[in-house]
Amino acid sequence: MNARANPPRLVIVGSIGLDTIQTPAALRTEIVGGSAAYAAMAASLFAPTGVVGVVGTDFPRSALRRMARRGVDLRGLQVVPGRTFRWSGVYEENMDVRRTVSTELNVFADFRPELPPDYRAAPYLFLANIAPALQVCVLDQMAAPKLIMADTMDLWIRETRKDLMNVLRRVQVVTLNESEARHLTGEHNLVVAARAILRMGPRMVLVKKGEHGSMLFHGKEIDLLPAYPLDRVRDPTGAGDSFAGGLMGRMAATRSRTPSAVLEAMRYGSVTASFNVEAFGWDRLARVRPAEMGRRLRRYRRMCGRS
Amino acid sequence: MNARANPPRLVIVGSIGLDTIQTPAALRTEIVGGSAAYAAMAASLFAPTGVVGVVGTDFPRSALRRMARRGVDLRGLQVVPGRTFRWSGVYEENMDVRRTVSTELNVFADFRPELPPDYRAAPYLFLANIAPALQVCVLDQMAAPKLIMADTMDLWIRETRKDLMNVLRRVQVVTLNESEARHLTGEHNLVVAARAILRMGPRMVLVKKGEHGSMLFHGKEIDLLPAYPLDRVRDPTGAGDSFAGGLMGRMAATRSRTPSAVLEAMRYGSVTASFNVEAFGWDRLARVRPAEMGRRLRRYRRMCGRS
Repeated sequence: MNARANPPRLVIVGSIGLDTIQTPAALRTEIVGGSAAYAAMAASLFAPTGVVGVVGTDFPRSALRRMARRGVDLRGLQVVPGRTFRWSGVYEENMDVRRTVSTELNVFADFRPELPPDYRAAPYLFLANIAPALQVCVLDQMAAPKLIMADTMDLWIRETRKDLMNVLRRVQVVTLNESEARHLTGEHNLVVAARAILRMGPRMVLVKKGEHGSMLFHGKEIDLLPAYPLDRVRDPTGAGDSFAGGLMGRMAATRSRTPSAVLEAMRYGSVTASFNVEAFGWDRLARVRPAEMGRRLRRYRRMCGRS
Repeated sequence: MNARANPPRLVIVGSIGLDTIQTPAALRTEIVGGSAAYAAMAASLFAPTGVVGVVGTDFPRSALRRMARRGVDLRGLQVVPGRTFRWSGVYEENMDVRRTVSTELNVFADFRPELPPDYRAAPYLFLANIAPALQVCVLDQMAAPKLIMADTMDLWIRETRKDLMNVLRRVQVVTLNESEARHLTGEHNLVVAARAILRMGPRMVLVKKGEHGSMLFHGKEIDLLPAYPLDRVRDPTGAGDSFAGGLMGRMAATRSRTPSAVLEAMRYGSVTASFNVEAFGWDRLARVRPAEMGRRLRRYRRMCGRS
């Protein structure tokens, strides 16, 4: 979609779609969403990012321009005849509970990721939430990424477990939320669950707990991170995707892959996600300025006793 | 009950009773419990602690000896004719939800705290969970404590709100859990709720989030602390009380009262509570050795990125 001189340092594959979101405060119809949309907007705050995905011809061109303006490389995004992927959900009881109302795969049903040649050499890869078989398809096209992180969801744990186990054997970091970690392992205790997931292949397991922060498990170690506290949350959609995107963008920018670098990058992810939930969809994320990011990061470090 | 040469540095008032606890794993009948029992056993790990409360003549003398052996000053504990306070509860769904089955006030119904003269000069006071009118009664007997922390619960917020507001005007720190902070203020957002509580009087508001950690609000600042992660929780009863007790014991030991000292003391409280929930009742807490405490504190600091 745009002409970039440089290959992306970070490649993100995932869903891009149109979301209809009802919160106690408001209803928004067909706004841009999807795991790769949030993750790419977040990551591109920190590093050159290329996105891999599919949209239909009904996808708003203004959204593509918004990504391109942020510097997201869209050459891996297929625009095909048909309707874009759609999701609709309702947040109940003060945003704590989310219920999916409907999902329409549309053009996603026949999607085969096809990476532009210079994407294949990217040193960082984020497999955002998407069918594990498609994650594998992207993995197979990459040369030798330095660090791969994969996200997943309950649906794939339940219905395509074998494909998911394949992914877990081939990535260094897996990120999932509390209930997914429990579902994947059948263990209620998070420490026990995370250690069981480590035995499935990845070197690090990143458990997301939403407003309660996140935990990084590696070897016998655990790193604990609180979430950035907000006095107003308008739309939690994309919090986990913008967290992971910010994290991987920061990793790509610093060219590191150690657990301590991941922990530091999680701080960037937390602050990125805190901006994201302040408005519907990616509206706030698309407007974040570097000075704001720096201020909130400094404040966050102080809150965590690292001033 | 015991002859101590020195007055306590920390005085704790609260309930002492016999709990019957059902978890998915086990049932325990009439084991020692109550906010002051847990808090005093925790605090006495760090500083000379005197307890104020009441038990009936049926209270096991072995439990009194256990507290005395730990060094808890029991001269403020009244032993009166009648039955000890009893509570019974059930933990469901993997310990996340607790339901009270029954409460018998018994000797608590007519309790009036009476402080031994040398308790009155103690520089630290913890008003553990008990009727606010009784908390006020203790406040009225104290000379000029350097730091007072109060705990409370939903029952008092609902039924004796005026007394509770009286307490809040007279303490420096109030500690409550998430749902209590919401209930007290009618605000779902914790940041907004905590700021509203600051306006009720206390200089610091400490919100306990159980396995998700704790938050300290003071002025416009927020300090965030994750909880110590455990791979096995046997009985969550007394987690908040041992957290608060460990915190106040540490404050009393270091003779400080600033927010940064409270934050550091919260780390001691978190680790103390982590021991407490590893066994039923106070069994594990009563056995903690200083070397174990030190090891777990060091491990906890490393987990929080403070190595």
